[in-house]
Amino acid sequence: MNALLLVAHGSRKESSNTEVKQLALQMQRLTDGKFDLVKHGFLELAEPSIPGAIDDCVKCGATHITVVPYFLSAGRHVTEDIPEEIAIGQKNNPAVEITVSGYLGARSEIAELLIKAAVYAQGGRQ
Amino acid sequence: MNALLLVAHGSRKESSNTEVKQLALQMQRLTDGKFDLVKHGFLELAEPSIPGAIDDCVKCGATHITVVPYFLSAGRHVTEDIPEEIAIGQKNNPAVEITVSGYLGARSEIAELLIKAAVYAQGGRQ
Repeated sequence: MNALLLVAHGSRKESSNTEVKQLALQMQRLTDGKFDLVKHGFLELAEPSIPGAIDDCVKCGATHITVVPYFLSAGRHVTEDIPEEIAIGQKNNPAVEITVSGYLGARSEIAELLIKAAVYAQGGRQ
Repeated sequence: MNALLLVAHGSRKESSNTEVKQLALQMQRLTDGKFDLVKHGFLELAEPSIPGAIDDCVKCGATHITVVPYFLSAGRHVTEDIPEEIAIGQKNNPAVEITVSGYLGARSEIAELLIKAAVYAQGGRQ
């Protein structure tokens, strides 16, 4: 069973954490069979933690987890902190196979998305 | 003349700031005439500041600026800090018209983009 784990920073502002939960639910609806399960986890300031979310995925039957960092830049969180947290989850669940995808900001589609946001704000103004 | 101003948080890590500069350059190439000019600015920790970037746009001839927040959630930065910085830029440049678009994380396409990242990481694994 194939799980996708969306990993966000986590915020003291509960509404920001709720945005992440809603996004994971939206992804669950859109996954179209590519993943059996979509869960979310937070690096800090909110629950579930990354190791906790990995435990949850395994409890739900996941044999493979793809972690997707919901981050815009390759800062310390992406390069060091998330891998460290995943290593803890892997240690606690040695049988599960874990893959980490590129972070969101690395996607080439972002530039066009930002232009679209700007055009929309203008109401099509040239 | 119509400018797009990409606004990011800013980082102590210069490579993260460079990612933003590169993104603005990529957007400049993709704008396809919708914007005459694409600039970038940072909320904190890096230059140019948002008021500084607004000055730059006006110096280049911008009469309208669309600010696009490169942020994932509607936290304090998006709801309070960026509007405050824009207000300073507007005060310094009273003739320019400034519009603010939705922040990146509000785009409905993000969910599909994250699923794509996960599928790519798996090399198409089902």
